[in-house]
Amino acid sequence: MHVDWLITLFDYFGIVIFAISGALVGGRRRMDPVGFALVGTVTGVGGGTLRDLVLGVRPVFWVEDPSYIIVCVVASVATYFATSHISSLRRALVWADAVGLATFAVLGTQAALAQQVSPVIAVAMGVMTATFGGIVRDVLCDDVPLILRREIYATAALVGAVVYVGLDWTGLDQTLVMAAGFAAALSVRAFGIVFGVHGSDAGTGAGTGELAAAE
Amino acid sequence: MHVDWLITLFDYFGIVIFAISGALVGGRRRMDPVGFALVGTVTGVGGGTLRDLVLGVRPVFWVEDPSYIIVCVVASVATYFATSHISSLRRALVWADAVGLATFAVLGTQAALAQQVSPVIAVAMGVMTATFGGIVRDVLCDDVPLILRREIYATAALVGAVVYVGLDWTGLDQTLVMAAGFAAALSVRAFGIVFGVHGSDAGTGAGTGELAAAE
Amino acid sequence: MHVDWLITLFDYFGIVIFAISGALVGGRRRMDPVGFALVGTVTGVGGGTLRDLVLGVRPVFWVEDPSYIIVCVVASVATYFATSHISSLRRALVWADAVGLATFAVLGTQAALAQQVSPVIAVAMGVMTATFGGIVRDVLCDDVPLILRREIYATAALVGAVVYVGLDWTGLDQTLVMAAGFAAALSVRAFGIVFGVHGSDAGTGAGTGELAAAE
Repeated sequence: MHVDWLITLFDYFGIVIFAISGALVGGRRRMDPVGFALVGTVTGVGGGTLRDLVLGVRPVFWVEDPSYIIVCVVASVATYFATSHISSLRRALVWADAVGLATFAVLGTQAALAQQVSPVIAVAMGVMTATFGGIVRDVLCDDVPLILRREIYATAALVGAVVYVGLDWTGLDQTLVMAAGFAAALSVRAFGIVFGVHGSDAGTGAGTGELAAAE
Repeated sequence: MHVDWLITLFDYFGIVIFAISGALVGGRRRMDPVGFALVGTVTGVGGGTLRDLVLGVRPVFWVEDPSYIIVCVVASVATYFATSHISSLRRALVWADAVGLATFAVLGTQAALAQQVSPVIAVAMGVMTATFGGIVRDVLCDDVPLILRREIYATAALVGAVVYVGLDWTGLDQTLVMAAGFAAALSVRAFGIVFGVHGSDAGTGAGTGELAAAE
Repeated sequence: MHVDWLITLFDYFGIVIFAISGALVGGRRRMDPVGFALVGTVTGVGGGTLRDLVLGVRPVFWVEDPSYIIVCVVASVATYFATSHISSLRRALVWADAVGLATFAVLGTQAALAQQVSPVIAVAMGVMTATFGGIVRDVLCDDVPLILRREIYATAALVGAVVYVGLDWTGLDQTLVMAAGFAAALSVRAFGIVFGVHGSDAGTGAGTGELAAAE
C-alpha cells in the first residue's frame, strides 16, 4: 500500500511534467489554447496509453479516472499563463522532458512487470513508455524530435529500466528500486544534456545540449 | 431506434467527409492512388479507431462491418477523379475538415457516454475523436497540421462536446442534443475560418482562414 | 503445422528486414544507438502491433514472446556496425523496405483471415500491416515517407493482399498462396522502383526509384 501510494504520486508527477513539456512546445507555436491543452494532455498520458494498449489493459488507465485528464489540462493551462512573459523556454523544456523520461522509464517497467511479462519486455515497455509521449508531442508540433538528437536520450530510459529490473530481481525494497531507476535514468540524461555527449560516433558540431529551436 | 439510425447516418457522413479531406490533401501530393485511398481511409476511420482502442471496444468498429472501409475507398477515389481539374482545393479542404470536426465531436462524445464514462472523459473523447483523423492525415502527408494553426480549431471540438454533454444531461431529445452539439462546433470553427480569429494572443499576420499551402 | 512453421519463419524474416530498414534510416540521422535500436524495433513490430490492436488480439504478439524484440534489437545493432563504412545506404533501404512490404502484406492478410473477418477487411489489414511500420519509421526520423512518393508503393501491398485472398479462397495449398502473394507484391513494387513508374498521373521529374535523400 505504501508502494502503491508512491507509484500513484510518481505517476501524477511524471504526467504533470510531461504535460508541461507539451505545453512549452505548444507555447512556441502560439496555438489555439485548447490545442495547447490537447498537446499537453497527449504528451502527459501518451506513454501510459500506448503501454496499456499493448499490454491489453482496457480501458486505458485515464478512462476510468478523470483526474488524470483534469491534471493535464490544469498543468497545461497554468504553463500557458506562467510562460507568457518568458522569452526562452528551451532549457526548461529539455529539463522537464528529462524528468518525465526518467519517471516513465521506471513506471513503464514497473507496470509491465506487474503483468508478469519477461524482463526483456519490461525493459522495452519502460523505454517505450518513457519516449512515446515526447515523440507524439514533437511530431504533433512539427518540432525536431528529441529522440533524433545526437545526445544520449533513449539510452537514459534504457539504463533506468535495466537498473529497475535488475534491482527488482534482487528483492530490494520497492521504494529504493524505484528511486535508483529514476536516479540512474536522470543522471544519464543529465550527463547528455550538460556535456552534450553524443551516443553516436563523433559527428559535426559541438551540441549545446539545448533543444534546437525550430523558429 | 430512431436515434440509432441518426447516429449511423451521422457516422457515415463524418467518415465520408473526412475521407474526402484526406483525399484532397493526398491529391496535393500526387501520391500513388492506393496511397491516396489509404490516406482517405485512415483520415475517415482514424478518430473512431483511437476512440474504440482507448475505450477497450474490440475489435474496432470497422473490422466487423466492411462497409466503412468500402465507403472510405469509394469517397477517396471519387474525390481523386472529381478534383483532377480543380486547381485550388484549399477552401474545400478547410470546410470539409470543419464539418468532419463538428460531426465527430458529437459522435465521439456520444460513444464515450454510451460506455458510462464520466462527463470529463466524454468531452476529452469527443475532442480526441474529432481531431485525431485530421492530425494523422496531416502528419502522413507531411502537411502543416490544422491543429497548429492559430485560428480557433480544437476549441470548436471542445465547445461541441461540452454542449452535447450539457444538453444530454438535461434529458432533451437525442436528435436535438446531437444537432445542437454539431451546430455549436461548426459555428465556432466557421467563425475561426471566416474571420481568421486567433485563439492565442494576437500574433503576426492577418490569417486568411485558408490552409497554408505546403507547395 | 507445416504452414504455422512457415508463417513464423516469414514473420521473423519480415521483422528483421523492417528492423534493418529502420536502422538504415536511423543511421542517416546519426542518432543515439538506443534510439537507433528503438526505431529499428518500432519499424519491425509496428505493423503487427497495429494489426493486433485493431483486431482486438491482446496483449499484442511481442509481449508474450521476447524473441521478437531481441531479434529487432540484434538486427538494428548489427546494421549499425555493418553500415558504418558504407557511404550510400539508399538503395539498400529501398529494397529492404520492398521485401518487408511484400512479407507483411501477406502476413497481415493471413492474420486477419484467421480471425474470420470479411475479405475486404483482410485486404485492408494486409495493406495496413505492410505500410504502418515504414510510415512510423519515416515519421519518427522526419524523413520523406515512402508512401508519399509518386512511384507505385501502397498499390504493391494491395496487389499482394488481393492475390492472397483470391487464391486462399480457391483452397490452394497455403505455402503456394503465401508465395504467390509475396511474389505479386514484390514484383509490383520492384517494377515501381526499377522503372520509376508512377501510380498517379504523369508528373514532373523522372523518378530514379531511389529514396529522396533528406540530407
